[in-house]
Amino acid sequence: MPAPRGVLTARRSPRLPFLDVPYFDAASAAPLHPVARQALLAALDEGWADPARLHREGRRARLLLDAARETAAEAVGCRPDELVFTPSGTAAVHSGMAGALAGRRRVGRRLVVSSVEHSCVLHAAEAHEEAGGEFHLAPVDRTGLLDLPAFRSLLSPGTALACVQSANHETGTVQPVAEAAAACREEGVPLLVDAAQSLGWEAPPGGWSLLTASAHKWGGPPGIGLLAVRKGTRFSPARPVDERESGRFPGFPNLPAAVAAAASLRAVRQEAADEAARLRALVDRLRARVPALVPDTEVVGHPGRRLPHLVTFSCLYVDGEALLTELDRAGFSVSSGSSCTSDTLVPSHVLKAMGVLSEGNVRVSLPRGTSEEDVERFLGVLPGIVAGVRSALSAPVAGGPREQAPPQAPEAPEGSPDQEETQEQEGPPEGGGRAPGGAAAVVDSRGKRCPIPVIELARRIGDVPPGRVVAVLSDDEAARLDVPEWCRMLGHEYVGETPAEGGGTAYLVRRAHG
Amino acid sequence: MPAPRGVLTARRSPRLPFLDVPYFDAASAAPLHPVARQALLAALDEGWADPARLHREGRRARLLLDAARETAAEAVGCRPDELVFTPSGTAAVHSGMAGALAGRRRVGRRLVVSSVEHSCVLHAAEAHEEAGGEFHLAPVDRTGLLDLPAFRSLLSPGTALACVQSANHETGTVQPVAEAAAACREEGVPLLVDAAQSLGWEAPPGGWSLLTASAHKWGGPPGIGLLAVRKGTRFSPARPVDERESGRFPGFPNLPAAVAAAASLRAVRQEAADEAARLRALVDRLRARVPALVPDTEVVGHPGRRLPHLVTFSCLYVDGEALLTELDRAGFSVSSGSSCTSDTLVPSHVLKAMGVLSEGNVRVSLPRGTSEEDVERFLGVLPGIVAGVRSALSAPVAGGPREQAPPQAPEAPEGSPDQEETQEQEGPPEGGGRAPGGAAAVVDSRGKRCPIPVIELARRIGDVPPGRVVAVLSDDEAARLDVPEWCRMLGHEYVGETPAEGGGTAYLVRRAHG
Repeated sequence: MPAPRGVLTARRSPRLPFLDVPYFDAASAAPLHPVARQALLAALDEGWADPARLHREGRRARLLLDAARETAAEAVGCRPDELVFTPSGTAAVHSGMAGALAGRRRVGRRLVVSSVEHSCVLHAAEAHEEAGGEFHLAPVDRTGLLDLPAFRSLLSPGTALACVQSANHETGTVQPVAEAAAACREEGVPLLVDAAQSLGWEAPPGGWSLLTASAHKWGGPPGIGLLAVRKGTRFSPARPVDERESGRFPGFPNLPAAVAAAASLRAVRQEAADEAARLRALVDRLRARVPALVPDTEVVGHPGRRLPHLVTFSCLYVDGEALLTELDRAGFSVSSGSSCTSDTLVPSHVLKAMGVLSEGNVRVSLPRGTSEEDVERFLGVLPGIVAGVRSALSAPVAGGPREQAPPQAPEAPEGSPDQEETQEQEGPPEGGGRAPGGAAAVVDSRGKRCPIPVIELARRIGDVPPGRVVAVLSDDEAARLDVPEWCRMLGHEYVGETPAEGGGTAYLVRRAHG
Repeated sequence: MPAPRGVLTARRSPRLPFLDVPYFDAASAAPLHPVARQALLAALDEGWADPARLHREGRRARLLLDAARETAAEAVGCRPDELVFTPSGTAAVHSGMAGALAGRRRVGRRLVVSSVEHSCVLHAAEAHEEAGGEFHLAPVDRTGLLDLPAFRSLLSPGTALACVQSANHETGTVQPVAEAAAACREEGVPLLVDAAQSLGWEAPPGGWSLLTASAHKWGGPPGIGLLAVRKGTRFSPARPVDERESGRFPGFPNLPAAVAAAASLRAVRQEAADEAARLRALVDRLRARVPALVPDTEVVGHPGRRLPHLVTFSCLYVDGEALLTELDRAGFSVSSGSSCTSDTLVPSHVLKAMGVLSEGNVRVSLPRGTSEEDVERFLGVLPGIVAGVRSALSAPVAGGPREQAPPQAPEAPEGSPDQEETQEQEGPPEGGGRAPGGAAAVVDSRGKRCPIPVIELARRIGDVPPGRVVAVLSDDEAARLDVPEWCRMLGHEYVGETPAEGGGTAYLVRRAHG
């Protein structure tokens, strides 16, 4: 591994990542902002000492830490003594939720979180449940927007805490935080707002009781998060703690990172309005042109209430991992919520909660400074790359007429590996078994991963007469999301699902009348 | 606050802290090593992306993280997959202890820790107790060395975990880790070794099951700690976790800090033998000359088994905070375990566990590169500074004969504020009450802080005949440690303590025969 070893002992002058090929994954981690880099260096030189010490170096460190806290608090819209630094956004969420839940233990142990929160919120909710608490997921609509009436109805008197993100990290949908806060206030429930994706653009509306954020999302350094707890919020920090950060987060503080986080937050906010307008125009272009250029593609997320720099779309008959690999080869770094790009091989919980297509999913999140040329280049290469991935999968010819007639039976190449592996059954299976749901054809895609089940369904749908049912057998979790979505996009009727004999699930699809 | 505000927006080139006045508090936080700085910068440029992502930037980050893990594991003496990065040494200790205790929950809930562990270990032990577990403190001797037979006897079959530091952070005493590990192995108890103070010098002896460390102690950056868990150690990470760091520590990793930590650990180890020998000679000089130059001063810690760069001493009749302030004014940054320098106003638990003097306590911990001249300068100013602090407190003339005769009754200045505030009682108190322990004189120092009770005792001891008892009434926690120590140092007999009528404690001292 010569490259990383080299960095560990490197003597050469550093290169700014901004000069690299286009990086479209700012929502995972933004390249370090120049102001963050500069502040980090200065604070490493001036603020390496222990701010709890009485000596000169300690006092200097303390002044730096206080100033960073003041700057960050101003950007958050809170008092400096309401804000502590944590080692990450995840740590802020975990300790914020634990502290708020413990502080209101006597009120109740009910936790309400939106179903599209960041996984760290869901992990903390699961831990709360394992420890004897209960948690409830508030649903969202197909655009990812919190269902406010449903949210409100979950806020029973025994609710200790509710969590609603300011904006979604996968779709960019901006949540109705002010309305959620009003609902919480009425019920006397504290609201934690995870502002990780939006704090670099603007402070979330007031009304929250706890707020969390993560510096590397706005171009600050890694290793630093923010947790703000409004005065008057019951808060009992998870043990063990020490005297650091008002007793809310233990351990030697990462002071240089805190200074860099605060300095860069101030810097990005100063340019936020202009840059947001510029990136929003580029994202508008992507939202309009991707579906026009790439057939059978769906842009997901709210069309209006959204982050300026982020757009997500999904492509039928496309393997997300292959798509990412090809885009990466073409010089574009994006991420995906497709199951094949996840360690756990399940689609993103966000896409699941929205009930939208997960196969061939791509999230484009533009870092500050992204050029129009880069976006145009992306639009230039994307259609060919998607077509290439589809062709490699022997996917049906895309772009067939929608909501009128199903596509023609696909012309799969003779003897293609996919076809050979498919164990298809037509009509009632042999051996006297009944086809699931009285299907006229059964496509057994068990053991195959997204997007193969949908591709095989698309290939076979033409083999049954209009009005008859095809059963797709699959043990891939993505099928539950993608088969109904395929029906919706292509105009067929999704009948429902039933357990398949021998394992997996049968998804029943009635062919549309042409 | 112009300075810190300036750093947040600074454009000037940074200045290395090494060029500052002498900094003798490396055990709190060492100045950033040049290699750490360099590696941090390189990794900020190359490794800011999410190492969990599949794209080019993510893969590059992953390579850097893997290389950092390999380098750190080599220095620790473990396999890379046994080591995870945490946001601090405290976080490593907290998650290591919680994981080990939870992993052996079925075995038992007994925890054994040495009484001189870092406070983060004790905080975790207290949290364990609050959660229904039990913990036991293994005693140390007057040099701070773990009492091995006592430690062994605490390792009953229901013991889930034992914790022994590699070396003490306040006294430098190096613990018998190999022997402790052998004792643990015999009992089948996993041993966690907190190697925070020593890892920059050498890997601790094998035999541990868990090891923790903190990068900023060896000149690495803040914001990064190490937790190694040997294969085969039962470990159940505290929830919530995610897929990061083998599921052992959640949140976006502080990759640049991990890279800088690993690079600097390798660098300091390469020069460790030479630098240790050099600093050890300087510390030897301090150990020999401080007591010779400063009367009534005691060097604490083990004379032989100790860290190369650290020495701690305590001065009778000295206010630790005043001493630190004066040393700081003279350009020397040190720390102290005296009660007056602590937020909680109790003496360091380490000094308490050792049973040594806590007043006028100074810890000198030399960073790498400390010059002989700086140490000589320190030795030059120290006697005058201590004398000045003593004089301001109207302390007795120090350096009187020891273990033969008590000092003469001090010649306190007429009408000094201290004397005026002292409410002394001689003989049986008025109102028919009995003097505590049949004391011939009572010195009521209640409401006064260390070192005043000891100073008042020293002033009054000459007023009673040899063989008679003086009772010092005090509600200051430091008196419990310092009155007996004063007796030991001056040759008087410490009789014991008894609750004082009206609050506080009466400490009984029998004047020595001259």
